[in-house]
Amino acid sequence: MSIATKLKIHNFSAGPCILPQEVLQKAAESIVEYDGTGLSIIEMSHRSKPFEAVMANAQQLVKELLGAPDNYQVVFLGGGASLGFHMVPLNYMRSGGKAAYANTGEWATRAVKESALVGETLVVASSEDKNFSYIPKGFEIPGDADYFHFTSNNTIFGTQYKQFPKSPVPLICDMSSDIFSRPMNVSDFALIYGGAQKNMGPAGATVYLMDPDQLGKTGRKLSPVLDLKNHASKDSMYNTPPVYAVYVSMLTMEWMKKIGGVKEIEKRNAAKAKLLYDAVDSLPLFKGTTAVEDRSVMNPTFVMTDAALEPAFDAMWKEAGVSGIRGHRSVGGYRASMYNALPLESVQVLVDVMNEFAKKNG
Amino acid sequence: MSIATKLKIHNFSAGPCILPQEVLQKAAESIVEYDGTGLSIIEMSHRSKPFEAVMANAQQLVKELLGAPDNYQVVFLGGGASLGFHMVPLNYMRSGGKAAYANTGEWATRAVKESALVGETLVVASSEDKNFSYIPKGFEIPGDADYFHFTSNNTIFGTQYKQFPKSPVPLICDMSSDIFSRPMNVSDFALIYGGAQKNMGPAGATVYLMDPDQLGKTGRKLSPVLDLKNHASKDSMYNTPPVYAVYVSMLTMEWMKKIGGVKEIEKRNAAKAKLLYDAVDSLPLFKGTTAVEDRSVMNPTFVMTDAALEPAFDAMWKEAGVSGIRGHRSVGGYRASMYNALPLESVQVLVDVMNEFAKKNG
Repeated sequence: MSIATKLKIHNFSAGPCILPQEVLQKAAESIVEYDGTGLSIIEMSHRSKPFEAVMANAQQLVKELLGAPDNYQVVFLGGGASLGFHMVPLNYMRSGGKAAYANTGEWATRAVKESALVGETLVVASSEDKNFSYIPKGFEIPGDADYFHFTSNNTIFGTQYKQFPKSPVPLICDMSSDIFSRPMNVSDFALIYGGAQKNMGPAGATVYLMDPDQLGKTGRKLSPVLDLKNHASKDSMYNTPPVYAVYVSMLTMEWMKKIGGVKEIEKRNAAKAKLLYDAVDSLPLFKGTTAVEDRSVMNPTFVMTDAALEPAFDAMWKEAGVSGIRGHRSVGGYRASMYNALPLESVQVLVDVMNEFAKKNG
Repeated sequence: MSIATKLKIHNFSAGPCILPQEVLQKAAESIVEYDGTGLSIIEMSHRSKPFEAVMANAQQLVKELLGAPDNYQVVFLGGGASLGFHMVPLNYMRSGGKAAYANTGEWATRAVKESALVGETLVVASSEDKNFSYIPKGFEIPGDADYFHFTSNNTIFGTQYKQFPKSPVPLICDMSSDIFSRPMNVSDFALIYGGAQKNMGPAGATVYLMDPDQLGKTGRKLSPVLDLKNHASKDSMYNTPPVYAVYVSMLTMEWMKKIGGVKEIEKRNAAKAKLLYDAVDSLPLFKGTTAVEDRSVMNPTFVMTDAALEPAFDAMWKEAGVSGIRGHRSVGGYRASMYNALPLESVQVLVDVMNEFAKKNG
């Protein structure tokens, strides 16, 4: 069994999504036997020395790749970013306090709803008026909010903050779909969190990168399993962590480090995005769905100007081995998710198909 | 890469723990490519047809293996049984109501604590007085409690309910460490839940098997991510499920079905337990730590009558390829976890070592 026997699929899935081929190879081998231990990575205790080393390495790599301050802490929990939406207000909104949110899409909306179940929640910016096709700008964040929460990249609607908001209160960001896609200043954030299943690894782990000084200030009595301070103090081992998802995330982070880190990845992502958006803009058959200045580098969305041509276009890209570019039902058309592990060659294949289709139908 | 190249380790880990070798082989292959799709199981959308089929199959197998009533529902969530401890009172204790618990060990204690954070919690039975070395019997469950919660098998202390309590109120059971180990009457339970990482699969998924008629009765407004009724209504896809842990659990359940189901597994587990406990009882160097009638089939615990001999004994079983039998710090001595996938041959190796050691040191 080898990765080389795999069919060539150009995997544009919105998540869970493509992972580096060399990561998959090692991830498969470790299911059979991990690192000479005689045991599979999934049948050893999370308290064993080999797995404790995996966890420590994964935590360190998150900080190293993002250039986080030394005192920041990393935990990997289950439950997805959706559980994070619930934990954020519990851990950061003071009893009787309030939180400020920007609503830029489906996941931001869910985060707002979870916060509203905990306490006063102000939506200080929203792009709902235009089906979330842009990123709000120039809004004000009240200085008496306990934190400001936003979603850095909107997977479904294909928009992305190019600059992070300046905030008078602690910043909290759901970076599920663009973490590790570009350099950033971690010390601006009280908390960065995200599901692993886009740029990091398999579904099943959610990473939390936290300023410890911002924890434990709400005056609220928390369930230990929802208490980020508890998880941090137990070094992500309060209960059994999602072992394999942490391990594969570690492998992916090692790959990112090896190829040149987040700076190099940003370059690669920019090249992929330029290639695709140039095709969308130059071919009259296609049209982007978002404000140009807010276009996501991760999840470009576009529609056909003549929807009747969709079946013929679909047949052509499927024939070329392209997978997963049908848009989400709330936007329609197409979404070509281009996460870190997607090679430029796959984007080239898609663009070639678009050009060929335009030539035939233009 | 093949499973046959693996060293022979006799894996008595308390969890995450041994999985069937043929499951590991298929689990590894699917990381490279899943079932002719050209994609790894961990890089395809959870909304793809192949994974939807995996989820449906896993849900059906839980019900089939346990003989659950047709209307019962199954979801797989992240967060471990520890998140379950929090969700149980939220989903089953009425606002202003109360819950009854049996406290038989570390995990039961955590469940009690989580419930007490939600509302009135009565500990109606406890074996804490003797370091949880027995299962309480003959206790009364108040008829006005909203439910009675117990832990069917106590991983750390090595005790197990041989008969489930009769209850005038809905029964809820954490079966993390002995689910699928024996036949049972599912319709006696409002909820059975458990972390996958013992008898089912890798860490990262928790199974909830629920009577839908017992959901949504508390009058409490729940966060959707903590609402079992919501997860059931979304067929375990409210948010991205822990894809790989569900998939490997499905493989393990297929293996259980193939070898004869839970009845056959019960027989095998009984044979393994008899072999080990007979050695413990017949060799004066060893001594069980629990009440004989409450001995766990999954996690036999024992100590040496002369602790000074431990280092020599440890050297001998390690030499024989035995792994993971040091006891939990709260009990000391030894714990030989013998989950479903552990072959009788591994128990025989351990018993042979015990006999040989006794001969040399008896």
